[in-house]
Amino acid sequence: MNTTKRTEISSLGEFGLIERLTGNLPVNNKESVKGAGDDAAILQFSNDEEVLVSTDMFMEGVHFDLTYFPLKHLGYKAVIANISDIYAMNGTPKQITVSLALSRKFCIEDIEELYSGIELACRQYGVDIVGGDTTSSLTGLAISITAIGTAPKGCAVRRSGAKETDLICVTGNLGAAYMGLQLLEREKIATADKDIQPDFQGKEYILERQLKPEARKEVLEKLSEENVKPTAMIDISDGLSSELMHICKQSGVGCRIYEERIPIDYQTAIMAEELNMNVTTCALNGGEDYELLFTVPIADHEKVAAMKEVRIIGHVVSDSMGLALITRDGVEMELKAQGWVSNSDGK
Amino acid sequence: MNTTKRTEISSLGEFGLIERLTGNLPVNNKESVKGAGDDAAILQFSNDEEVLVSTDMFMEGVHFDLTYFPLKHLGYKAVIANISDIYAMNGTPKQITVSLALSRKFCIEDIEELYSGIELACRQYGVDIVGGDTTSSLTGLAISITAIGTAPKGCAVRRSGAKETDLICVTGNLGAAYMGLQLLEREKIATADKDIQPDFQGKEYILERQLKPEARKEVLEKLSEENVKPTAMIDISDGLSSELMHICKQSGVGCRIYEERIPIDYQTAIMAEELNMNVTTCALNGGEDYELLFTVPIADHEKVAAMKEVRIIGHVVSDSMGLALITRDGVEMELKAQGWVSNSDGK
Repeated sequence: MNTTKRTEISSLGEFGLIERLTGNLPVNNKESVKGAGDDAAILQFSNDEEVLVSTDMFMEGVHFDLTYFPLKHLGYKAVIANISDIYAMNGTPKQITVSLALSRKFCIEDIEELYSGIELACRQYGVDIVGGDTTSSLTGLAISITAIGTAPKGCAVRRSGAKETDLICVTGNLGAAYMGLQLLEREKIATADKDIQPDFQGKEYILERQLKPEARKEVLEKLSEENVKPTAMIDISDGLSSELMHICKQSGVGCRIYEERIPIDYQTAIMAEELNMNVTTCALNGGEDYELLFTVPIADHEKVAAMKEVRIIGHVVSDSMGLALITRDGVEMELKAQGWVSNSDGK
Repeated sequence: MNTTKRTEISSLGEFGLIERLTGNLPVNNKESVKGAGDDAAILQFSNDEEVLVSTDMFMEGVHFDLTYFPLKHLGYKAVIANISDIYAMNGTPKQITVSLALSRKFCIEDIEELYSGIELACRQYGVDIVGGDTTSSLTGLAISITAIGTAPKGCAVRRSGAKETDLICVTGNLGAAYMGLQLLEREKIATADKDIQPDFQGKEYILERQLKPEARKEVLEKLSEENVKPTAMIDISDGLSSELMHICKQSGVGCRIYEERIPIDYQTAIMAEELNMNVTTCALNGGEDYELLFTVPIADHEKVAAMKEVRIIGHVVSDSMGLALITRDGVEMELKAQGWVSNSDGK
């Protein structure tokens, strides 16, 4: 929270605040006919496009802790989490609406800080803010964002299209955002009520993955260039394990993935070791990676194998074979879903 | 909250709950290609339609009090508040997304009750639930709904089109929802910790306006039948006064409205008298009416005058003349905006 200057929200009023936040928003997309400032935004899409809509809610104390999460980063991350869902449909995000509920502890400067992160993410990904709602809350901050995007007709990729023998691929690496969270929690406790600074040295990457994640736009462009169309896709927000279960369940298939192939960054591994946690468990169940998990026909093996941002971690099998991880020792272990809630317990 | 049967949310888990709520949703509109159950909904609109998007957030303790607001009604009202914004653009609502944040005090039966109201409103107005998010909250209930609708290209009505000499019209009557709220608050205090029932006799109408509002779909159909296209339109969610200010500011005009023409229901007037409040002030500043406020060219006078659901309350004047209410005594009083927050103080 801002400590240098503090202007109360009441000094502007609700309408004044909304105008200050949304008065001069840029428009990047031709589809955004009329943005904030009316009862509804006016958008215009064409017959040959499908429109994609996704929504997410972030609650203070559940999804973020403002003692170590800067408001600007929070705004940025809230946008990324939403547009990542549009990319996960093989779409292009075009617009978002932003609803905020704020308790009295927040001042105008805080909200501007939050909004600056929202705007930065929108600029980076070419997205327009076309509306929203700003209201009060009894306790804490709530952020609800709806993202709207498009895909050429017939090009949206669902979770349900995975077929036997398809390859299972992930982008980037996994577990880093979760390890970043553990680091922040550890340093929060270590520095509480003490006059010392948190120690993040050598852990900048996992910190950034937690505090300023990015969406995997460039991988989709690469796949499209190479004419590879995923058969199923999802973004990894709740952990590889549960996302794989979504794809398998909705596609009516099973899977085999290989522990040794799961991409893990060096800092993630070091942090897990420091905390005496199993790094594979972190990669399987840690949330907020916003990497893409997708399946491709085996015929595309050569193409995806050549992409440095993509790792093939396993393959699709028949439903009757179930979902399993093959460990480094060659042992087959059944995959179990773990939601974000149980992750927070810190296994 | 449900007291007869209580199933904890944890017994189903997040994914189980979402599936239970959205597993069998009907699809009413051809535009809804794929609803809940993927990263994003897939919608399909045509070139000759404009797409309208609106969003609202409702926070427990700020927008509703669950001691007297039944969850089913709350769900219904949250949908109405959102689709009312689509109607206020002269559009037809087609889809909504529903995000809920719930604290531990809520059980599965509560959420099903809330959802039953959401679904009822959707059925009444032909709207599809195409997605959402369900998450936890540290305290209370937060509901965020985004509504998506369409209007034939060029037919969306903005706030900015009012012209000098246009007639100012409202649908239905005003202040009733606010008086319903005052009644509920009074009876909450009167019956607190006592073994008596609240007394709502003869006040059913204002109670219904607060607890189960409707959107003014049929008036738009009537206007369309009669070939009347409003020049500017807004829905009355924060009170006539502030909505008029939005239209005038965005249209660059002033207005004159007449106290004696403001439509007020008998029960609203009785309740205001009982509470020793000025009923015109209630109509001007009381929120949540979800009536439509719109302007039409003076040439349409005869047509709108003949519509029983519509009342002409004044006319548009030049910007330099400002915004004023002419009282029953013929005194001109400047109109001032009052947000919902200040209304709650109970003037």
